[in-house]
Amino acid sequence: MSTTIDATSTTDTDTDTAAVLAVLHGVHDAVAAGDARAAVDAHAGDAAVYDLAPPLVAGTGSREGDVAALQAWIDGKDAPPVITLHDPVVHVGGDVALVFGLARMSGSSAREGGAFSFWFRVSYGLRRAGTTWRIVHRHESVPFRMDGTFLAALDLRP
Amino acid sequence: MSTTIDATSTTDTDTDTAAVLAVLHGVHDAVAAGDARAAVDAHAGDAAVYDLAPPLVAGTGSREGDVAALQAWIDGKDAPPVITLHDPVVHVGGDVALVFGLARMSGSSAREGGAFSFWFRVSYGLRRAGTTWRIVHRHESVPFRMDGTFLAALDLRP
Repeated sequence: MSTTIDATSTTDTDTDTAAVLAVLHGVHDAVAAGDARAAVDAHAGDAAVYDLAPPLVAGTGSREGDVAALQAWIDGKDAPPVITLHDPVVHVGGDVALVFGLARMSGSSAREGGAFSFWFRVSYGLRRAGTTWRIVHRHESVPFRMDGTFLAALDLRP
Repeated sequence: MSTTIDATSTTDTDTDTAAVLAVLHGVHDAVAAGDARAAVDAHAGDAAVYDLAPPLVAGTGSREGDVAALQAWIDGKDAPPVITLHDPVVHVGGDVALVFGLARMSGSSAREGGAFSFWFRVSYGLRRAGTTWRIVHRHESVPFRMDGTFLAALDLRP
């Protein structure tokens, strides 16, 4: 795991880095367990989420709606998808954390064409609220081919 | 302009927020002026860049290569594209800044189908190096349709 630590911070950045990554791994563990509520609860109420799929900015406008939407997405698969975050880079300054890296999602959906596995890019922003880090921003994407097809590039590897 | 400011920071966050946004606006101004070198110079040498187009992580491995690649992209258009950042949200903590929001790119390329204008999502991470903020992370994307077409959604609006 690569981490870049803010040496000028007055906080214990090793501890902060571990805490921030624990939140993100917790979200992925929650998805893999099919627990949409736990995944959504890691986010601030006004988090700005840029998902793999439209719209530009995700969100139903309510936490219960967001939980229901994520649960429906999970339940649409044969089993909950598995997301793994590889070599995340972490920057912590004060109560702000930035994390980015490449992730892989694997799963299977009989009604969506069977097994899938692809790499995507992730950026996360977190803020410390009391003793807890919450996700205030999440951006997940794959690039698209500028060759006239405008197809999402789902076959890329690091 | 919406900004979210770290009230617990020991630094002057109004000044920091303005400085961070000036760096980003400077990049867009440089692109609009056709000045690839100025745009690249706003980035740290080891910046992790996730572009709209493949690969997963951009970069040629050298600053001169990155300048040449961006210049070629700009020069492939009829005129330098215009990128505007709308209502960016800024979080500053110590020497780390996170900025995200929606952006629009407009331009024209006779050899790529004529005029284009689309909205996309941006996330930026910056670090203070001495008195200067440098971009250490840039993530730009459009979502793709999970309807079996896997097409980039270039027609979305905020």
